Amino acid sequence: MDVQIANNELKAKAFLQEIESKNPLFIATIATTETGKIPGLSAAGANPDFTDFTPPADVELLLLGKCRSIQGVPITPDGIPTPGLITTSALHLADIPVLVVNGGVKVKPQIPFVDVGGNSGRDIRTGDSVDNVAEVIERAKVLGEQMAKTADYLVIGESIPGGTTTALGVLTAMGVNAEGKVSSTFPQNPHNQKIEIVRQGLKAAEARFGNFKGDPIKAIAAVGDPMMPALAGLVIGGARQGPVLMAGGTQMTAVLSVINALAPEALCNVAVGTTRWVTQDKMSDICGIIRQFCQVPVIAADLDFGPSQYPGLRIYETGLVKEGVGAGGASIAAMAKTGGAVTKEILLKEIERNYAQLMKLK
Amino acid sequence: MDVQIANNELKAKAFLQEIESKNPLFIATIATTETGKIPGLSAAGANPDFTDFTPPADVELLLLGKCRSIQGVPITPDGIPTPGLITTSALHLADIPVLVVNGGVKVKPQIPFVDVGGNSGRDIRTGDSVDNVAEVIERAKVLGEQMAKTADYLVIGESIPGGTTTALGVLTAMGVNAEGKVSSTFPQNPHNQKIEIVRQGLKAAEARFGNFKGDPIKAIAAVGDPMMPALAGLVIGGARQGPVLMAGGTQMTAVLSVINALAPEALCNVAVGTTRWVTQDKMSDICGIIRQFCQVPVIAADLDFGPSQYPGLRIYETGLVKEGVGAGGASIAAMAKTGGAVTKEILLKEIERNYAQLMKLK
Repeated sequence: MDVQIANNELKAKAFLQEIESKNPLFIATIATTETGKIPGLSAAGANPDFTDFTPPADVELLLLGKCRSIQGVPITPDGIPTPGLITTSALHLADIPVLVVNGGVKVKPQIPFVDVGGNSGRDIRTGDSVDNVAEVIERAKVLGEQMAKTADYLVIGESIPGGTTTALGVLTAMGVNAEGKVSSTFPQNPHNQKIEIVRQGLKAAEARFGNFKGDPIKAIAAVGDPMMPALAGLVIGGARQGPVLMAGGTQMTAVLSVINALAPEALCNVAVGTTRWVTQDKMSDICGIIRQFCQVPVIAADLDFGPSQYPGLRIYETGLVKEGVGAGGASIAAMAKTGGAVTKEILLKEIERNYAQLMKLK
Repeated sequence: MDVQIANNELKAKAFLQEIESKNPLFIATIATTETGKIPGLSAAGANPDFTDFTPPADVELLLLGKCRSIQGVPITPDGIPTPGLITTSALHLADIPVLVVNGGVKVKPQIPFVDVGGNSGRDIRTGDSVDNVAEVIERAKVLGEQMAKTADYLVIGESIPGGTTTALGVLTAMGVNAEGKVSSTFPQNPHNQKIEIVRQGLKAAEARFGNFKGDPIKAIAAVGDPMMPALAGLVIGGARQGPVLMAGGTQMTAVLSVINALAPEALCNVAVGTTRWVTQDKMSDICGIIRQFCQVPVIAADLDFGPSQYPGLRIYETGLVKEGVGAGGASIAAMAKTGGAVTKEILLKEIERNYAQLMKLK
């Protein structure tokens, strides 16, 4: 299989063995925040205000093969397409079913989605960013457990613009040193801007590094985002029944820190699945965050867009975008379900086909 | 297995064979309407205004084993508990997972539920009772198809007070003779009242018997309810992937008439699963409705509450309640999943246990 193991090799291999040839359910968890609209933070939308439409459009793409809430597909300010294109291609190749969970979005997607009682998030500089955290976690637990009974395992991804900044917020509040370690959709990671935003948020919440270590619900409520309680609950509930692949980059480490505080036993059944662009990124350190508090393995899909005929895809190799909409985890699941028959070359061909069709290049 | 076949014996046997020892997903579809509040129509609530709380409370019971939106459990005006108690017991015995779909309710359940774009229904006497019918059908199709990929088959039930009157409405609009044939939660079926309400609704929609035969979407929009488009879409989408057991009584015949007009090929993969109290009811005729337009088999769980130690359960044998929240279909699925190990006696014991606990009898 075209994957790379980034840490905890034996645990990673055991996890891969457990999911081989199994039938997963992919759950896409979406949310939006005002944090995501701070200029310079996120490339998940053509401009900051447009980030409200990125998550709904991403999940429409997953379920319908095209978007309804916007024309075309979500793009970066440079016109580079959403990583949802990778996810869609991987899930389609391996015929993996999808369920969408609304952690809290401003613009509702025009497809079926699960409501877990969450709302769109505020700017974390207020120190009061997310509503209903405990209730959303409880409802998502119920959903995660039920869905894990229907599938052999769960793959749970996210689409939330600005999510690495809120991840830094929660990690910092939880006493995990993540400054300079969270990833970015931009090749040049605006670490200083993120650190300053988190500093303001914690100050507004009258907190400092590690102050909410024993209260992850407060950490999310103060400086987190609405994807986190939904995703944490889904993982905790799902891991009661079977393996869970958390499909995402450094954002997942913030969720891991929350799970570690709420239900550490869940982590035995969990791996993070991401892309090589995240694990090999020189400007972030996913494994360096995780090893501060747990031994969850990180597995990377060995995606390589270097050979692509399309400049819009080749640019992924420069570090733009890197991950999102569970692209890495979905790719790993597609490879595992097909016993390796889906290779990175086959996946790239399918991505190129969908890219050309959606960008109307042919 | 403790089931009875009510019609189309060979098809029914083939269906039962197909689901034996298989793992289903139970989908509970909920909705409420102003029609359900017309006095004398429905026993699905202690009083008419209370019917808004019955569907959310029913699905809370399924997922949590207790209700959150109300104290205790939904009851009839006489204090008889919801058939959701049967469903909960059956699903629990066979460890069958549950997903809740909101067709359109006024009071949102306090558990995770799927939004398919529907709203609560108006009184059908307006001749304009349901919004977004076509859109809800499309979204539910997408969901049904995805969920059918995760499970071996789908069992799809409903909770909607007043649903047999709207069923009569749609069947009449579709040119199916159902007067005096739809069931009732009351032992004395108020057929004349239902017929008069439907007559008024059709008149307000400027329509007569069979006028919407070619336009089931208009039939639902005029004199139907919001459970119907959600359930029809789920069945159509689900049947593309595998068997679908429609879990309910005569309300399901209205949904069948809609599916028959929209996607008749889906019906090859469909059976109706209900209770003996419905199929043996002298005051309704589920098979007589179905045979007018299709050959879908009807299978009844051979439930028998006669031996119960509780008067509140024995009264089911007098024809009160009869069916609801997919009680019959869930019972059949529990028996089938366990290869008959769940018998009607074992099921009754579990129902009595839950009944005593929820009604605080012990």
